Amino acid sequence: MYAELNIAELHGALEDPALKSMNFLNEVANHYPDAISLAAGRPCEDFFDLEDLHRYLRTFCRYLSEELGYSDELVRRTVFQYGRTKGIIHHLIATNLQMDEGIAVDPESVVVTVGCQEAMFLVLRALRADERDVLLAVSPTYVGLTGAARLADLPVRPVATGTGGIDLDDLVGTIRRERAAGRRPRACYVMPDFANPSGLSMDVPTRRRLLEVARAENILLLEDNPYGLFHGDSDRMCTLKAMDEWRRVVYLGSFAKTALPGARIGFVVADQRVAGTDGLFADQLSKIKSMLTVNTSALAQAVVGGKLLEHHGSLAKANVREREVYARNMRRLLDGLAGRFPNPANGGSPKVTWTGPAGGFFVVVTVPFVVNDELLERSARDYGVLWTPMHHFYDDPGPVRALRLSCSAVSPERIDTALDRLAELINDQLD
Amino acid sequence: MYAELNIAELHGALEDPALKSMNFLNEVANHYPDAISLAAGRPCEDFFDLEDLHRYLRTFCRYLSEELGYSDELVRRTVFQYGRTKGIIHHLIATNLQMDEGIAVDPESVVVTVGCQEAMFLVLRALRADERDVLLAVSPTYVGLTGAARLADLPVRPVATGTGGIDLDDLVGTIRRERAAGRRPRACYVMPDFANPSGLSMDVPTRRRLLEVARAENILLLEDNPYGLFHGDSDRMCTLKAMDEWRRVVYLGSFAKTALPGARIGFVVADQRVAGTDGLFADQLSKIKSMLTVNTSALAQAVVGGKLLEHHGSLAKANVREREVYARNMRRLLDGLAGRFPNPANGGSPKVTWTGPAGGFFVVVTVPFVVNDELLERSARDYGVLWTPMHHFYDDPGPVRALRLSCSAVSPERIDTALDRLAELINDQLD
Repeated sequence: MYAELNIAELHGALEDPALKSMNFLNEVANHYPDAISLAAGRPCEDFFDLEDLHRYLRTFCRYLSEELGYSDELVRRTVFQYGRTKGIIHHLIATNLQMDEGIAVDPESVVVTVGCQEAMFLVLRALRADERDVLLAVSPTYVGLTGAARLADLPVRPVATGTGGIDLDDLVGTIRRERAAGRRPRACYVMPDFANPSGLSMDVPTRRRLLEVARAENILLLEDNPYGLFHGDSDRMCTLKAMDEWRRVVYLGSFAKTALPGARIGFVVADQRVAGTDGLFADQLSKIKSMLTVNTSALAQAVVGGKLLEHHGSLAKANVREREVYARNMRRLLDGLAGRFPNPANGGSPKVTWTGPAGGFFVVVTVPFVVNDELLERSARDYGVLWTPMHHFYDDPGPVRALRLSCSAVSPERIDTALDRLAELINDQLD
Repeated sequence: MYAELNIAELHGALEDPALKSMNFLNEVANHYPDAISLAAGRPCEDFFDLEDLHRYLRTFCRYLSEELGYSDELVRRTVFQYGRTKGIIHHLIATNLQMDEGIAVDPESVVVTVGCQEAMFLVLRALRADERDVLLAVSPTYVGLTGAARLADLPVRPVATGTGGIDLDDLVGTIRRERAAGRRPRACYVMPDFANPSGLSMDVPTRRRLLEVARAENILLLEDNPYGLFHGDSDRMCTLKAMDEWRRVVYLGSFAKTALPGARIGFVVADQRVAGTDGLFADQLSKIKSMLTVNTSALAQAVVGGKLLEHHGSLAKANVREREVYARNMRRLLDGLAGRFPNPANGGSPKVTWTGPAGGFFVVVTVPFVVNDELLERSARDYGVLWTPMHHFYDDPGPVRALRLSCSAVSPERIDTALDRLAELINDQLD
């Protein structure tokens, strides 16, 4: 007889809404390729140039030979062979963090990963010692975090967003409730800058108090920062890691938005000491990585390394054009929403509201009706516009009356057309 | 206070011998860089050429535009952007399997992974539904398999090697004992061709009977085949997957030895149906992958894809030179052992024996004394030669009197010198 598996006898995560979400959203997008997508959080494609890849690789190899004094044989071995589990561009990443984020780290505390997703999994797998361990996360939460936690068998407890990006009273209350129930809250996942999906940022006093809570309550903070460089016209705020006097912050980094997703290069900074070892948390993550992916592609690291080198370590400099595109698109999206849903003072309806992020990729639109997957499918089919139902970012299966718009990989003209279509859908629903 | 973690409160795998093994072996190698290594199972470095990488990338992009009719924009998007979770070179891999292995697979059953290591983890994570599930593996076992199983919280039960590469009676007995104890044996991991570490291959009748046992006992076989192409002067034997009439075999593939480790590209073929879904096991693995690494680097896939294209899909053709190097080195190693430890018929000692594999990278030498990590460290320091203590490949912590030699990434002259040093060590131990 043919081997046949049964979904009921495979890992429980496979039946989990978090893993199904991604698949469903991709399927809708593939099924309606002509619909304009305000769903995808992909980077802008305007400046992709294949020749850049060749040049980055040559730049990195030249750096190995000219700056580091590698022989030709060693250069070839570095790019072709198995390599250091923690990666080969850790010094360049440390320089980049110093330049762009004001974060001073020991390169030995950096683990280069297969995108930020692997970094999240490594941290969650390490922190899950037994069934008592739980993770906290600001809700709504990036679905990739929830999915990684499911794979690590680590429950996620929601913390309210509040007005400053995280409700610290709810954080403390949740920690204490969990402890009272015999569980161990290990860390809280946060995206302080232009969060996915909310678009919100934490103000500076909240950041300071969050670090203080982490210290007082003895938990880690997992700071994910894929969008910080895209701060529009506003000033950048200091990352938690830059303010992290007590090594409370594990910093998750991604080059998907600042270099290219096709390299799948991310990293984690984990400079915490680990009692019972003579090393850092990064070294423990490296041990897990050695059994998960062995090491991150040297070839892909070389390409990202070359891009870093060409901009003297600064991705802020490398992304001047991209930042302008994102800021322009965000203004267009927000202006477009204001034009189509005028506020009550101007005789408009108070029923449709939206966030007004100063940067990043995402805006959340709140409507007076439930936004489910069926509505998205109808939107794609009958209106020709894609977006993301916000319920995908909540663990709670209750109804959610909001949707996420992304403006990162679409032209201004198509933003206008997409908003026309979205307004038609919303108005039809309101009728 | 500074955050400080405690190893006792991190995932149990981190204290596991399987994860410590890799770290220890790497540390010894790094600590004694002047010692000749017969430890590393790295591919031969003689033919690495940086220009090849550029050409492969161009070849792949030309294929996208000329063969698949992609626009320039779509070519750029394919290489730069996020992409299909199951990968973008699945058709090329299916062609390769047909040409080199006689395996006919639906490209949709292929998931491209971050090396074979991620493929193993995906399969083991999927098969581990609860604490009843166990994995079987021919012992001694590749340490990467054991490590991946630890990360997936999946216990590994050893199956004896026997004379044909796997002791089928022990396999059936182990399956039944596990079932009687209330556990679910899900699969048996095997490396039928030139196994790591034993160097042994399964004969054809054993392969047939193994497939029959898998069917009768309703388990999967995880066939790992990194060395099959390097069959020396012997003929190749048919892979299990090529003989797999009943879809019992999940096939694990690696391009680390046949293309380049620096790309970190592997794959899994999982063409089993999954009840309760309308798809294949590959689709479930893809869902896990989406939360682990999102997708495999398109850039790295493009380079491997280019190499496949340049050799019309055949890595056997692409590796003619490499196969000759490995066959030459294996002869040199076996001749060198015979010269230094003559057999009793010629007045030599029966105390030192070794396997005589027809291909692959590895030879196991059995000695009349315990081979532990302390002896390896002494060998590196005092004799200048590195090898791998065989106890690293057994879950059982008992003493092991054997060591593994690898001849893949060393010149014939250095093989001779290394064997002189090894013989000195062994003779000193025998005195």
